[in-house]
Amino acid sequence: MNVLLVFAHPEPQSLNAALRNVAVQALEAQGHEVLVSDLYAQGWKAQIDRADFPALPPERRLKVPSVSGEAFTAGALTMDVKAEQEKLLWADVLLLQFPLWWFSMPAVLKGWVERVYSYGFAYGIGRHDDTRWGDRYGEGRLAGKKAMLIVTTGGWHEHYSARGINGPMEELLFPIHHGILYYPGYDVLPPFILYKADRLDKEGFNQAAKRLRLRMRTLGTTAAIPYRRQNDGDYLIPTMQLRPGLEHPGASGFALHLKSDEAREAEELLLAKVQDAETVGSS
Amino acid sequence: MNVLLVFAHPEPQSLNAALRNVAVQALEAQGHEVLVSDLYAQGWKAQIDRADFPALPPERRLKVPSVSGEAFTAGALTMDVKAEQEKLLWADVLLLQFPLWWFSMPAVLKGWVERVYSYGFAYGIGRHDDTRWGDRYGEGRLAGKKAMLIVTTGGWHEHYSARGINGPMEELLFPIHHGILYYPGYDVLPPFILYKADRLDKEGFNQAAKRLRLRMRTLGTTAAIPYRRQNDGDYLIPTMQLRPGLEHPGASGFALHLKSDEAREAEELLLAKVQDAETVGSS
Repeated sequence: MNVLLVFAHPEPQSLNAALRNVAVQALEAQGHEVLVSDLYAQGWKAQIDRADFPALPPERRLKVPSVSGEAFTAGALTMDVKAEQEKLLWADVLLLQFPLWWFSMPAVLKGWVERVYSYGFAYGIGRHDDTRWGDRYGEGRLAGKKAMLIVTTGGWHEHYSARGINGPMEELLFPIHHGILYYPGYDVLPPFILYKADRLDKEGFNQAAKRLRLRMRTLGTTAAIPYRRQNDGDYLIPTMQLRPGLEHPGASGFALHLKSDEAREAEELLLAKVQDAETVGSS
Repeated sequence: MNVLLVFAHPEPQSLNAALRNVAVQALEAQGHEVLVSDLYAQGWKAQIDRADFPALPPERRLKVPSVSGEAFTAGALTMDVKAEQEKLLWADVLLLQFPLWWFSMPAVLKGWVERVYSYGFAYGIGRHDDTRWGDRYGEGRLAGKKAMLIVTTGGWHEHYSARGINGPMEELLFPIHHGILYYPGYDVLPPFILYKADRLDKEGFNQAAKRLRLRMRTLGTTAAIPYRRQNDGDYLIPTMQLRPGLEHPGASGFALHLKSDEAREAEELLLAKVQDAETVGSS
């Protein structure tokens, strides 16, 4: 497989850099091709602005979606953005690695998303009518590929647990998992999270590295977070609200957008049957 | 009152710029002092990196919390960061205004948080023992001040409603409201949100401006989002998990960190009595 690791930490001697090296080595040991976009090291421009659209006449108002769409269509984006888009198309798996800063990704990585996710590339694709609302949330340019986060935080696991004061980690990551990765089509694998990252001793690092290597070895077999596909009938169009009665009993908020256990089990059963049939067919 | 508006949109002719002007005029018309940090216009450096710590020896590893704490204590932060910290200390009210990009704040504003929120300034304050876990979540450097978001999005209100596919807006904003604003002590007012911002006609703009003016006139009287204070006994220390039984029936996730209706009503009643007493006392 081809793997792109987008790395967002400013310090080459950091724990994050050490973990990145562990991940890359584990992937290469399995014969995968790996590219790393080291955003700080390559001097990535963090903010999206006028300089991203060199063909834009000075008197034109910068409306990001339309201007971004025109530049993408015309091939008039900057070289650094085009290079990242090429890498995304090349990669079967996208890994985003970062320290959790203020409960989200670092600015430099957020700006990578804003600049690389052009209109027409990652959003603004597909028709809008009575049965579809664009190619997004499970469909889109990057459908068929996998994505996964590698995240470190100084906080404790308990602080990010179901009742923890910071909020549950899976909810804090929902805007990234669902809104940035699932949106343009990625299947999103459960994240690798390292807690208490500021206080890690040698033994702690070795354990984390072991756990990360395992995740890198199982990229191909790990089940994705079972988000609902937008255009498969679960949502009312055009209000894009989940149809009544589809949720787990008691579910609300972000959790509504996970398939119910029953639906998931039925799908897994179907998938298993298909695979059995394929196995029989190919033997 | 002193009001700081931090503005994060690259285009002077944008809807956001027009709304910013409406807000500033409404505030000044009431006699408030207003400062605007226009991040794009002032060329704000979006990402935190080594250049933020000019006194850091080249061979020292950049561990952001410790290095940031040392620089803050020594007065060795860069001039642009010091200026923003001074503005935060000066302002009674902080307004953050931005277009919602990929379900969060623009990179340039995220980087403002990362660079301005030094260790020792916005976090890493106060003692940790059996009864307290630092001055945060309702306590801290910026306690006693108010903060509020002004947000535009192209999406529809329904898409961000309780069952909407993007997730409920109040949950998408929780990492900012609770994790960035309440954390260093701000009382967080409910946000001003403008939906379908890409398709706004003259009449729509006038309505939005009217609504925004009303919010600016009522900054002093609008009730804050009733988040729980960390050190008031609601959380177990040091796991920082909400004590069993304190939540609304059925609440989970981010909603756990809102005071229950009963607690809120009791507090409001108490507050009303105190105010009555003060009124009597001062008459």
